[in-house]
Amino acid sequence: MAGESKSRAGEIRLWRNARLATMADSAAGLGIVEDGAIAARDGLIVYAGPERDMSAALSQNAEIVDCEGRWITPGLIDCHTHLVHAGNRANEFEMRLAGATYEEVTRAGGGIVSSVKALRAASQQELVAQSLPRLDALIAEGLTTIEVKSGYGLDLENEKKSLRAARLLGENRPVTVTTTFLGAHALPPEAKGDKDAFIDLVANEILPAVTADGLADAVDGFCEGIAFSPEQISRVFDAAKAAGLPVKLHADQLSNLHGAELAARYGALSADHLEYTDEAGAAAMARAGTVATILPGAYYFIRETKKPPIGLFRQHGVKMAVATDCNPGTSPLTSLLLTMNMAATLFGLTVDECLAGVTREAARALGLLGRTGTLEAGKSADLAIWDIERPAELVYRMGFNPLHARIWRGQ
Amino acid sequence: MAGESKSRAGEIRLWRNARLATMADSAAGLGIVEDGAIAARDGLIVYAGPERDMSAALSQNAEIVDCEGRWITPGLIDCHTHLVHAGNRANEFEMRLAGATYEEVTRAGGGIVSSVKALRAASQQELVAQSLPRLDALIAEGLTTIEVKSGYGLDLENEKKSLRAARLLGENRPVTVTTTFLGAHALPPEAKGDKDAFIDLVANEILPAVTADGLADAVDGFCEGIAFSPEQISRVFDAAKAAGLPVKLHADQLSNLHGAELAARYGALSADHLEYTDEAGAAAMARAGTVATILPGAYYFIRETKKPPIGLFRQHGVKMAVATDCNPGTSPLTSLLLTMNMAATLFGLTVDECLAGVTREAARALGLLGRTGTLEAGKSADLAIWDIERPAELVYRMGFNPLHARIWRGQ
Ligand SMILES: [Zn+2]
Ligand SMILES: [Zn+2]
Repeated sequence: MAGESKSRAGEIRLWRNARLATMADSAAGLGIVEDGAIAARDGLIVYAGPERDMSAALSQNAEIVDCEGRWITPGLIDCHTHLVHAGNRANEFEMRLAGATYEEVTRAGGGIVSSVKALRAASQQELVAQSLPRLDALIAEGLTTIEVKSGYGLDLENEKKSLRAARLLGENRPVTVTTTFLGAHALPPEAKGDKDAFIDLVANEILPAVTADGLADAVDGFCEGIAFSPEQISRVFDAAKAAGLPVKLHADQLSNLHGAELAARYGALSADHLEYTDEAGAAAMARAGTVATILPGAYYFIRETKKPPIGLFRQHGVKMAVATDCNPGTSPLTSLLLTMNMAATLFGLTVDECLAGVTREAARALGLLGRTGTLEAGKSADLAIWDIERPAELVYRMGFNPLHARIWRGQ
Repeated sequence: MAGESKSRAGEIRLWRNARLATMADSAAGLGIVEDGAIAARDGLIVYAGPERDMSAALSQNAEIVDCEGRWITPGLIDCHTHLVHAGNRANEFEMRLAGATYEEVTRAGGGIVSSVKALRAASQQELVAQSLPRLDALIAEGLTTIEVKSGYGLDLENEKKSLRAARLLGENRPVTVTTTFLGAHALPPEAKGDKDAFIDLVANEILPAVTADGLADAVDGFCEGIAFSPEQISRVFDAAKAAGLPVKLHADQLSNLHGAELAARYGALSADHLEYTDEAGAAAMARAGTVATILPGAYYFIRETKKPPIGLFRQHGVKMAVATDCNPGTSPLTSLLLTMNMAATLFGLTVDECLAGVTREAARALGLLGRTGTLEAGKSADLAIWDIERPAELVYRMGFNPLHARIWRGQ
């Protein structure tokens, strides 16, 4: 199959003889179309549906790709990553397996502060170079859109460097990158324990400067005992609102500080992790249309035992996204296929929920549902073409990549 | 780095400027050699150690590969797989996530019987074609030796077909394949529930015929309430002994039938799974030198909660191998890197134990420790060369492959 040729403006590319999982919101289940076809012009889908219902005009003069019966899904979307980071924390992992306590790891320079030090020491170019292999691993599995957070810089210069590195990833690879400013991630050493003063700095200085440079598409925070209080997060969210940016939140991961309700109160795009969220939180998210982003990699890696309340999310109609949370400390994970398997195996998400979680609902969690995430006319022609017999295989296997081809914006 | 050129008989290939994890039994930990070099001639390692201690004669006229400081480990070994199978069971996985009971899955044609039907319906050529992508996924991560079991044929013709397909894998790819006859895996439909009669068939007819054709390197059985009793397995093991083949056993996975002791009594190369093994079992294995093969993929996939007694194995000095158990029903896993992560994360194996588990101890579990599994003179030049800063990264990451190059028998 051709995947390399560039089509010219106005030209039509047509993928025929395919089975589609359109993931359209209006359709039942995966929105399956047997004997399907997708036509794209200028990077946008102009038709996705049964081949026999397609207008004949579309196939005339089109560049035609015969998919030989393969499955096409929307290109995959990772809606929660800390992909831009420097170094890794394999040494900590090794120490803890060898029996070291949290204190011993910290004394040895471990923990999030080690990632902050490494990021600050790295140039923007080094950050890009270190992050590209992670991005490439995700792209090799059909990724077409990725969210990347800052949050290891924790001062103006280094937060900007992180976000610029994230933007540069999108110039180095054919992929859509959205950036999230996560200044309220952790307290840097120079703050000397004064969380309130640091939040003032984040909300009143760093966030406005980052926004003025157009470096962030959204604002995130970490609401937790070991991070920031709901009141502190509120100050960051107020600043985000003033800057016209949508918010999202690391909420209720290790304890229930009612982060889900806080996120809902601000109309957040998503609240993420949510292991300790209660029914009031789920109900508030449903009312606000806040997506629940499920992050099984971190749950698995830190050996958490409390699972997010999937049943409550279903009951209240909360939409669920699924993401890698790719980060060096608690989820060194660069496979959305494996992430889906974990969501199914560890949390009992169905195959349909897993696939929606890395396509349609991930787009919704990024505020991009109008542009990508389903195979529907008017959206970006972001496709993943798979060598599989049924979509469940994408969730069932572990450590196997059946991607046949990936198309981003029609190419 | 060159990985393709063929060296002629007697020629020396030399990998220099490398960091070695020799995994030598006599060395401490990983047997680390900084500033190391490996020389190979006619597919065998002739030197592995500090570059400065290497005889100058070796580097004269050698084809030299500069490893630029990269790490070299022994090529990885997967010592427990059911890699040769037909079809997959993604539909079952999907049904169970959607809430189907075991009975409903069985009524819908699921379970191991569906794999038996699919294998019997497939030609030998189809079996090879379906298994190669799985093998390729493992090879892409540095695998150089793999064990493949029969056990979905369950009659003479189909067991032979499976083992021949396994042998053919080794002719289609540069990898060492060892085969294991697993006739006592499950009861085929035509046995109509008569386990004793089926075991007679396996022990007295199929096993001798398979052995006469040289198709099996070892004999395995599944000792479990849902499979075969210790007494039935003993009859198969007696036949294996008569045929001069070593044995291994699926033991104590779902209950404690004292499979570990049974395996030890027969001097088995390994006992595998072992979630329910008790201290007497661990002690017996230690005395017999039977390796404990840890299979975290199946534990994870079937959501088992009882962990194998790693502490007892350490205490009694039982050697531990780590393997994928790649199979369509309970472990559709084709990544040894991910398997190591699971062994560490789920069972607490250390980094050193994980790496030994997929190299030295996996070789021991196959009776091949004299030929591969460590970087030592006299062994096959089976190498994996990695883009990492420290070996712990091979265990820490999830869904990321840092392999730089793979060498099998010096090439
Ligand atoms: Zn996160
Ligand atoms: Zn097995």
